[in-house]
Amino acid sequence: MSRHTPLLQQLIDALRILPGVGPKSAQRMAFSLLERNREAGLQLGAALTAAMTQVGHCQQCRTFCETDLCRICSDPKRAAAGLICVVGSAADQLAIEQTGQFAGQYFVLQGYLSPLDGVGPDDLGLDKLQQLLQSGLVKELILATNPTVEGDATAFYIAELCHKFQVNVSRIAQGIPVGGELEFVDGTTLSHAFSGRKAF
Amino acid sequence: MSRHTPLLQQLIDALRILPGVGPKSAQRMAFSLLERNREAGLQLGAALTAAMTQVGHCQQCRTFCETDLCRICSDPKRAAAGLICVVGSAADQLAIEQTGQFAGQYFVLQGYLSPLDGVGPDDLGLDKLQQLLQSGLVKELILATNPTVEGDATAFYIAELCHKFQVNVSRIAQGIPVGGELEFVDGTTLSHAFSGRKAF
Ligand SMILES: [Zn+2]
Ligand SMILES: [Zn+2]
Repeated sequence: MSRHTPLLQQLIDALRILPGVGPKSAQRMAFSLLERNREAGLQLGAALTAAMTQVGHCQQCRTFCETDLCRICSDPKRAAAGLICVVGSAADQLAIEQTGQFAGQYFVLQGYLSPLDGVGPDDLGLDKLQQLLQSGLVKELILATNPTVEGDATAFYIAELCHKFQVNVSRIAQGIPVGGELEFVDGTTLSHAFSGRKAF
Repeated sequence: MSRHTPLLQQLIDALRILPGVGPKSAQRMAFSLLERNREAGLQLGAALTAAMTQVGHCQQCRTFCETDLCRICSDPKRAAAGLICVVGSAADQLAIEQTGQFAGQYFVLQGYLSPLDGVGPDDLGLDKLQQLLQSGLVKELILATNPTVEGDATAFYIAELCHKFQVNVSRIAQGIPVGGELEFVDGTTLSHAFSGRKAF
Protein backbone atom coordinates (compact mmCIF):
# COMPACT_ATOMS: atom_id res chain seq x y z
CA MET A 1 0.00 0.00 0.00
CA SER A 2 1.33 3.43 -0.90
CA ARG A 3 2.25 5.72 1.97
CA HIS A 4 0.27 8.56 0.44
CA THR A 5 -3.19 9.05 -1.00
CA PRO A 6 -3.27 8.80 -4.82
CA LEU A 7 -3.34 12.52 -5.69
CA LEU A 8 -0.65 13.33 -3.16
CA GLN A 9 1.55 10.49 -4.43
CA GLN A 10 0.97 11.65 -8.00
CA LEU A 11 2.05 15.19 -7.07
CA ILE A 12 5.19 13.93 -5.28
CA ASP A 13 6.10 11.75 -8.27
CA ALA A 14 5.50 14.64 -10.69
CA LEU A 15 7.67 17.05 -8.66
CA ARG A 16 10.61 14.65 -9.04
CA ILE A 17 10.86 15.55 -12.72
CA LEU A 18 12.38 18.87 -11.57
CA PRO A 19 16.20 18.81 -11.66
CA GLY A 20 17.75 18.35 -8.22
CA VAL A 21 14.51 17.22 -6.57
CA GLY A 22 14.70 13.82 -4.85
CA PRO A 23 11.93 11.92 -3.06
CA LYS A 24 12.48 13.72 0.26
CA SER A 25 12.34 17.23 -1.14
CA ALA A 26 9.44 16.37 -3.45
CA GLN A 27 7.50 15.31 -0.38
CA ARG A 28 8.48 18.45 1.50
CA MET A 29 7.40 20.59 -1.45
CA ALA A 30 4.02 18.86 -1.73
CA PHE A 31 3.32 19.18 2.01
CA SER A 32 4.46 22.80 2.05
CA LEU A 33 2.07 23.78 -0.74
CA LEU A 34 -0.85 21.83 0.72
CA GLU A 35 -0.28 23.15 4.23
CA ARG A 36 0.51 26.76 3.59
CA ASN A 37 0.01 27.89 0.05
CA ARG A 38 -2.57 26.19 -2.11
CA GLU A 39 -3.21 29.39 -4.01
CA ALA A 40 0.46 29.55 -5.06
CA GLY A 41 0.33 25.85 -5.91
CA LEU A 42 -2.56 26.52 -8.26
CA GLN A 43 -0.68 29.44 -9.81
CA LEU A 44 2.35 27.22 -10.36
CA GLY A 45 0.12 24.61 -11.98
CA ALA A 46 -1.34 27.21 -14.34
CA ALA A 47 2.07 28.73 -15.11
CA LEU A 48 3.46 25.30 -16.00
CA THR A 49 0.55 24.52 -18.30
CA ALA A 50 0.80 27.92 -20.00
CA ALA A 51 4.58 27.79 -20.46
CA MET A 52 4.72 24.17 -21.66
CA THR A 53 2.05 24.81 -24.31
CA GLN A 54 2.77 28.40 -25.33
CA VAL A 55 6.52 28.99 -25.06
CA GLY A 56 8.05 28.17 -28.44
CA HIS A 57 11.32 29.05 -30.14
CA CYS A 58 12.50 32.18 -31.91
CA GLN A 59 12.27 31.55 -35.66
CA GLN A 60 15.76 32.94 -36.14
CA CYS A 61 17.90 32.03 -33.11
CA ARG A 62 15.88 29.19 -31.52
CA THR A 63 15.90 30.68 -28.03
CA PHE A 64 12.74 30.28 -25.95
CA CYS A 65 10.20 32.77 -27.17
CA GLU A 66 6.44 33.30 -27.21
CA THR A 67 6.44 35.29 -30.43
CA ASP A 68 8.00 34.64 -33.86
CA LEU A 69 11.16 36.64 -33.23
CA CYS A 70 12.82 37.19 -29.86
CA ARG A 71 13.69 40.59 -28.46
CA ILE A 72 17.34 40.31 -29.51
CA CYS A 73 16.66 39.11 -33.06
CA SER A 74 14.11 41.94 -33.47
CA ASP A 75 16.68 44.58 -32.52
CA PRO A 76 18.22 46.16 -35.68
CA LYS A 77 21.20 47.44 -33.63
CA ARG A 78 22.16 43.91 -32.67
CA ALA A 79 21.74 42.66 -36.22
CA ALA A 80 23.99 45.46 -37.52
CA ALA A 81 27.00 44.02 -35.70
CA GLY A 82 27.01 40.98 -37.98
CA LEU A 83 28.08 38.76 -35.08
CA ILE A 84 26.47 35.46 -34.14
CA CYS A 85 27.37 33.74 -30.91
CA VAL A 86 26.49 30.03 -30.90
CA VAL A 87 25.54 28.58 -27.50
CA GLY A 88 24.24 25.23 -26.35
CA SER A 89 21.31 26.41 -24.26
CA ALA A 90 19.17 29.39 -23.33
CA ALA A 91 20.85 29.34 -19.91
CA ASP A 92 24.26 29.76 -21.58
CA GLN A 93 22.85 32.61 -23.68
CA LEU A 94 21.58 34.30 -20.54
CA ALA A 95 24.96 33.93 -18.80
CA ILE A 96 26.69 35.69 -21.72
CA GLU A 97 23.96 38.31 -22.00
CA GLN A 98 24.43 39.13 -18.33
CA THR A 99 28.08 40.02 -18.87
CA GLY A 100 26.80 42.92 -21.00
CA GLN A 101 29.88 42.46 -23.23
CA PHE A 102 28.28 41.00 -26.32
CA ALA A 103 26.17 43.21 -28.58
CA GLY A 104 25.52 40.78 -31.46
CA GLN A 105 22.99 38.04 -32.00
CA TYR A 106 22.82 34.47 -30.77
CA PHE A 107 22.10 31.07 -32.13
CA VAL A 108 20.82 28.68 -29.46
CA LEU A 109 21.41 25.04 -30.38
CA GLN A 110 19.20 23.70 -27.57
CA GLY A 111 21.53 20.71 -27.32
CA TYR A 112 24.65 19.25 -28.94
CA LEU A 113 25.28 16.76 -31.71
CA SER A 114 25.00 13.28 -30.27
CA PRO A 115 24.70 10.50 -32.86
CA LEU A 116 24.23 7.88 -30.13
CA ASP A 117 21.17 9.74 -28.84
CA GLY A 118 19.94 10.38 -32.37
CA VAL A 119 20.63 14.13 -32.22
CA GLY A 120 21.73 15.24 -35.67
CA PRO A 121 22.40 18.63 -37.31
CA ASP A 122 18.74 19.28 -38.18
CA ASP A 123 17.67 18.71 -34.56
CA LEU A 124 19.92 21.63 -33.59
CA GLY A 125 18.58 23.83 -36.38
CA LEU A 126 21.91 23.80 -38.20
CA ASP A 127 19.99 23.99 -41.51
CA LYS A 128 18.71 27.37 -40.28
CA LEU A 129 22.19 28.42 -39.20
CA GLN A 130 23.48 27.51 -42.66
CA GLN A 131 20.91 29.84 -44.23
CA LEU A 132 22.19 32.64 -42.00
CA LEU A 133 25.77 31.93 -43.04
CA GLN A 134 24.75 31.91 -46.71
CA SER A 135 22.99 35.27 -46.36
CA GLY A 136 26.30 37.15 -46.38
CA LEU A 137 25.18 39.22 -43.38
CA VAL A 138 27.34 37.39 -40.83
CA LYS A 139 30.83 38.84 -40.39
CA GLU A 140 31.90 36.48 -37.62
CA LEU A 141 30.50 33.45 -35.85
CA ILE A 142 31.69 32.98 -32.27
CA LEU A 143 31.55 29.47 -30.85
CA ALA A 144 30.62 29.43 -27.16
CA THR A 145 29.73 25.76 -26.90
CA ASN A 146 30.53 23.77 -23.78
CA PRO A 147 34.12 22.46 -23.56
CA THR A 148 32.84 18.85 -23.54
CA VAL A 149 33.19 16.04 -26.06
CA GLU A 150 29.75 16.76 -27.53
CA GLY A 151 30.23 20.52 -27.37
CA ASP A 152 33.59 20.21 -29.15
CA ALA A 153 32.18 17.91 -31.85
CA THR A 154 29.35 20.37 -32.46
CA ALA A 155 31.81 23.27 -32.57
CA PHE A 156 33.94 21.46 -35.18
CA TYR A 157 30.87 20.74 -37.29
CA ILE A 158 29.79 24.39 -37.23
CA ALA A 159 33.33 25.61 -37.93
CA GLU A 160 33.27 23.45 -41.09
CA LEU A 161 30.04 25.15 -42.16
CA CYS A 162 31.67 28.55 -41.63
CA HIS A 163 34.67 27.59 -43.72
CA LYS A 164 32.38 26.32 -46.46
CA PHE A 165 30.53 29.64 -46.59
CA GLN A 166 33.65 31.71 -45.94
CA VAL A 167 32.47 33.20 -42.69
CA ASN A 168 35.06 34.02 -40.03
CA VAL A 169 34.75 31.72 -37.06
CA SER A 170 36.26 32.04 -33.58
CA ARG A 171 35.93 30.28 -30.28
CA ILE A 172 35.79 31.80 -26.81
CA ALA A 173 39.03 31.29 -24.88
CA GLN A 174 39.58 28.28 -22.66
CA GLY A 175 41.88 28.75 -19.72
CA ILE A 176 42.06 29.20 -15.98
CA PRO A 177 39.00 30.90 -14.50
CA VAL A 178 39.55 34.46 -13.29
CA GLY A 179 40.27 34.31 -9.57
CA GLY A 180 40.94 30.57 -9.80
CA GLU A 181 44.00 29.08 -8.15
CA LEU A 182 46.35 27.11 -10.38
CA GLU A 183 46.70 24.19 -8.03
CA PHE A 184 42.97 23.53 -8.12
CA VAL A 185 42.59 23.78 -11.89
CA ASP A 186 42.31 20.44 -13.71
CA GLY A 187 45.08 19.32 -16.06
CA THR A 188 43.11 19.63 -19.28
CA THR A 189 42.15 23.21 -18.52
CA LEU A 190 45.74 23.96 -17.61
CA SER A 191 46.93 22.49 -20.93
CA HIS A 192 44.43 24.65 -22.81
CA ALA A 193 45.59 27.67 -20.83
CA PHE A 194 49.18 26.95 -21.88
CA SER A 195 48.48 26.37 -25.54
CA GLY A 196 46.32 29.50 -25.59
CA ARG A 197 49.00 31.73 -24.00
CA LYS A 198 49.43 35.26 -25.34
CA ALA A 199 52.30 37.76 -25.40
CA PHE A 200 52.40 39.75 -22.16
CA MET B 1 13.14 45.12 -19.63
CA SER B 2 12.73 41.63 -18.18
CA ARG B 3 15.36 39.10 -19.10
CA HIS B 4 12.73 36.54 -19.97
CA THR B 5 9.56 36.47 -22.01
CA PRO B 6 6.40 36.93 -19.89
CA LEU B 7 5.27 33.28 -19.63
CA LEU B 8 8.78 32.07 -18.90
CA GLN B 9 9.26 34.75 -16.25
CA GLN B 10 5.89 33.84 -14.75
CA LEU B 11 6.92 30.18 -14.57
CA ILE B 12 10.26 31.03 -12.94
CA ASP B 13 8.53 33.26 -10.38
CA ALA B 14 5.93 30.59 -9.64
CA LEU B 15 8.59 27.87 -9.13
CA ARG B 16 10.15 29.98 -6.39
CA ILE B 17 7.21 29.25 -4.13
CA LEU B 18 8.66 25.74 -3.71
CA PRO B 19 10.74 25.43 -0.52
CA GLY B 20 14.49 25.56 -1.16
CA VAL B 21 14.13 26.92 -4.70
CA GLY B 22 15.98 30.19 -5.36
CA PRO B 23 16.07 32.26 -8.55
CA LYS B 24 18.93 30.25 -10.09
CA SER B 25 17.38 26.85 -9.55
CA ALA B 26 13.92 28.08 -10.60
CA GLN B 27 15.46 29.18 -13.90
CA ARG B 28 17.26 25.87 -14.29
CA MET B 29 14.01 24.00 -13.61
CA ALA B 30 12.05 26.05 -16.15
CA PHE B 31 14.70 25.62 -18.86
CA SER B 32 15.02 21.90 -18.13
CA LEU B 33 11.28 21.31 -18.56
CA LEU B 34 11.03 23.46 -21.69
CA GLU B 35 14.10 21.90 -23.29
CA ARG B 36 13.68 18.28 -22.46
CA ASN B 37 10.40 17.38 -20.91
CA ARG B 38 7.32 19.43 -21.72
CA GLU B 39 5.10 16.39 -21.32
CA ALA B 40 6.29 15.95 -17.73
CA GLY B 41 5.87 19.69 -17.15
CA LEU B 42 2.25 19.41 -18.22
CA GLN B 43 1.77 16.41 -15.96
CA LEU B 44 3.22 18.34 -13.04
CA GLY B 45 0.88 21.24 -13.82
CA ALA B 46 -2.12 18.92 -13.82
CA ALA B 47 -0.97 17.12 -10.65
CA LEU B 48 -0.60 20.45 -8.83
CA THR B 49 -4.05 21.62 -9.88
CA ALA B 50 -5.63 18.29 -8.87
CA ALA B 51 -3.86 18.09 -5.50
CA MET B 52 -4.43 21.74 -4.52
CA THR B 53 -8.17 21.49 -5.23
CA GLN B 54 -8.95 17.90 -4.24
CA VAL B 55 -6.67 16.93 -1.35
CA GLY B 56 -8.53 17.74 1.86
CA HIS B 57 -8.17 16.62 5.45
CA CYS B 58 -9.25 13.47 7.25
CA GLN B 59 -12.41 14.29 9.24
CA GLN B 60 -10.97 12.57 12.28
CA CYS B 61 -7.20 13.10 12.39
CA ARG B 62 -6.76 16.07 9.99
CA THR B 63 -4.01 14.44 7.93
CA PHE B 64 -4.05 15.08 4.17
CA CYS B 65 -6.73 12.91 2.63
CA GLU B 66 -8.92 12.76 -0.45
CA THR B 67 -11.75 10.93 1.27
CA ASP B 68 -13.63 11.56 4.54
CA LEU B 69 -11.53 9.22 6.64
CA CYS B 70 -7.88 8.37 6.05
CA ARG B 71 -6.55 4.83 5.77
CA ILE B 72 -5.33 4.78 9.37
CA CYS B 73 -8.51 6.21 10.92
CA SER B 74 -10.56 3.67 8.89
CA ASP B 75 -8.59 0.74 10.29
CA PRO B 76 -10.46 -0.85 13.24
CA LYS B 77 -7.24 -2.52 14.44
CA ARG B 78 -5.58 0.84 14.92
CA ALA B 79 -8.62 2.29 16.66
CA ALA B 80 -8.68 -0.67 19.08
CA ALA B 81 -5.34 0.37 20.60
CA GLY B 82 -6.95 3.49 22.10
CA LEU B 83 -3.75 5.46 21.45
CA ILE B 84 -3.56 8.85 19.78
CA CYS B 85 -0.21 10.34 18.78
CA VAL B 86 -0.36 14.11 18.29
CA VAL B 87 2.05 15.49 15.66
CA GLY B 88 2.58 18.91 14.13
CA SER B 89 2.54 17.93 10.48
CA ALA B 90 1.81 15.17 8.01
CA ALA B 91 5.57 14.88 7.46
CA ASP B 92 6.07 14.17 11.18
CA GLN B 93 3.29 11.60 11.04
CA LEU B 94 4.99 9.91 8.10
CA ALA B 95 8.34 9.83 9.93
CA ILE B 96 6.75 8.05 12.88
CA GLU B 97 4.73 5.74 10.64
CA GLN B 98 7.93 4.70 8.90
CA THR B 99 9.46 3.46 12.16
CA GLY B 100 6.71 0.83 12.16
CA GLN B 101 6.67 1.05 15.98
CA PHE B 102 3.34 2.81 16.51
CA ALA B 103 0.10 0.94 15.92
CA GLY B 104 -2.40 3.55 17.17
CA GLN B 105 -4.01 6.56 15.55
CA TYR B 106 -2.72 10.08 14.91
CA PHE B 107 -3.94 13.61 15.31
CA VAL B 108 -2.22 15.96 12.89
CA LEU B 109 -2.30 19.57 14.10
CA GLN B 110 -1.09 21.01 10.77
CA GLY B 111 0.71 23.75 12.71
CA TYR B 112 1.26 24.93 16.28
CA LEU B 113 -0.42 27.45 18.55
CA SER B 114 0.94 30.89 17.71
CA PRO B 115 -1.08 33.80 19.09
CA LEU B 116 1.15 36.33 17.31
CA ASP B 117 0.32 34.72 13.96
CA GLY B 118 -3.33 34.38 14.91
CA VAL B 119 -3.17 30.59 15.16
CA GLY B 120 -5.52 29.52 17.96
CA PRO B 121 -6.82 26.15 19.24
CA ASP B 122 -9.64 25.93 16.69
CA ASP B 123 -7.20 26.44 13.80
CA LEU B 124 -5.45 23.26 14.91
CA GLY B 125 -8.71 21.35 15.26
CA LEU B 126 -8.33 21.12 19.03
CA ASP B 127 -12.14 21.27 19.33
CA LYS B 128 -12.17 18.00 17.37
CA LEU B 129 -9.43 16.55 19.55
CA GLN B 130 -11.47 17.47 22.63
CA GLN B 131 -14.42 15.49 21.26
CA LEU B 132 -12.12 12.48 20.88
CA LEU B 133 -10.91 12.86 24.46
CA GLN B 134 -14.50 13.15 25.68
CA SER B 135 -15.52 9.98 23.84
CA GLY B 136 -13.89 7.77 26.47
CA LEU B 137 -12.22 5.69 23.73
CA VAL B 138 -8.75 7.16 24.17
CA LYS B 139 -6.56 5.35 26.71
CA GLU B 140 -3.45 7.45 26.16
CA LEU B 141 -2.50 10.51 24.19
CA ILE B 142 1.16 10.70 23.16
CA LEU B 143 2.57 14.14 22.45
CA ALA B 144 5.09 14.08 19.58
CA THR B 145 5.17 17.82 18.94
CA ASN B 146 8.39 19.57 17.95
CA PRO B 147 10.72 20.49 20.84
CA THR B 148 10.36 24.19 19.99
CA VAL B 149 8.76 27.09 21.87
CA GLU B 150 5.56 26.80 19.85
CA GLY B 151 5.59 23.00 19.92
CA ASP B 152 6.03 23.06 23.71
CA ALA B 153 3.24 25.61 24.22
CA THR B 154 0.91 23.49 22.11
CA ALA B 155 1.92 20.35 24.01
CA PHE B 156 1.14 22.04 27.35
CA TYR B 157 -2.26 23.18 26.07
CA ILE B 158 -3.16 19.66 24.91
CA ALA B 159 -1.87 18.12 28.15
CA GLU B 160 -4.28 20.40 30.04
CA LEU B 161 -7.14 19.12 27.90
CA CYS B 162 -6.11 15.55 28.70
CA HIS B 163 -6.06 16.26 32.42
CA LYS B 164 -9.49 17.87 32.15
CA PHE B 165 -10.95 14.78 30.52
CA GLN B 166 -8.87 12.38 32.59
CA VAL B 167 -6.99 10.87 29.69
CA ASN B 168 -3.42 9.66 30.26
CA VAL B 169 -0.94 11.86 28.48
CA SER B 170 2.74 11.22 27.71
CA ARG B 171 5.42 12.83 25.66
CA ILE B 172 8.05 11.19 23.49
CA ALA B 173 11.49 11.24 25.10
CA GLN B 174 13.91 14.08 24.49
CA GLY B 175 17.57 13.19 24.67
CA ILE B 176 20.69 12.52 22.70
CA PRO B 177 20.04 11.08 19.24
CA VAL B 178 21.00 7.42 18.81
CA GLY B 179 24.48 7.31 17.29
CA GLY B 180 25.02 10.96 18.23
CA GLU B 181 28.26 12.03 19.89
CA LEU B 182 27.90 13.80 23.22
CA GLU B 183 30.34 16.56 22.40
CA PHE B 184 28.27 17.64 19.41
CA VAL B 185 24.92 17.62 21.21
CA ASP B 186 23.64 21.06 22.23
CA GLY B 187 23.34 21.95 25.89
CA THR B 188 19.55 22.04 26.06
CA THR B 189 19.28 18.56 24.59
CA LEU B 190 21.92 17.35 27.00
CA SER B 191 20.01 18.83 29.97
CA HIS B 192 16.84 17.09 28.79
CA ALA B 193 18.79 13.86 28.42
CA PHE B 194 19.99 14.19 32.01
CA SER B 195 16.62 15.02 33.54
CA GLY B 196 15.05 12.18 31.54
CA ARG B 197 17.59 9.59 32.71
CA LYS B 198 16.37 6.10 33.56
CA ALA B 199 17.65 3.28 35.83
CA PHE B 200 20.13 1.13 33.95
ZN1 LIG C 1 15.95 35.20 -31.64
ZN1 LIG D 1 -7.35 10.13 9.73
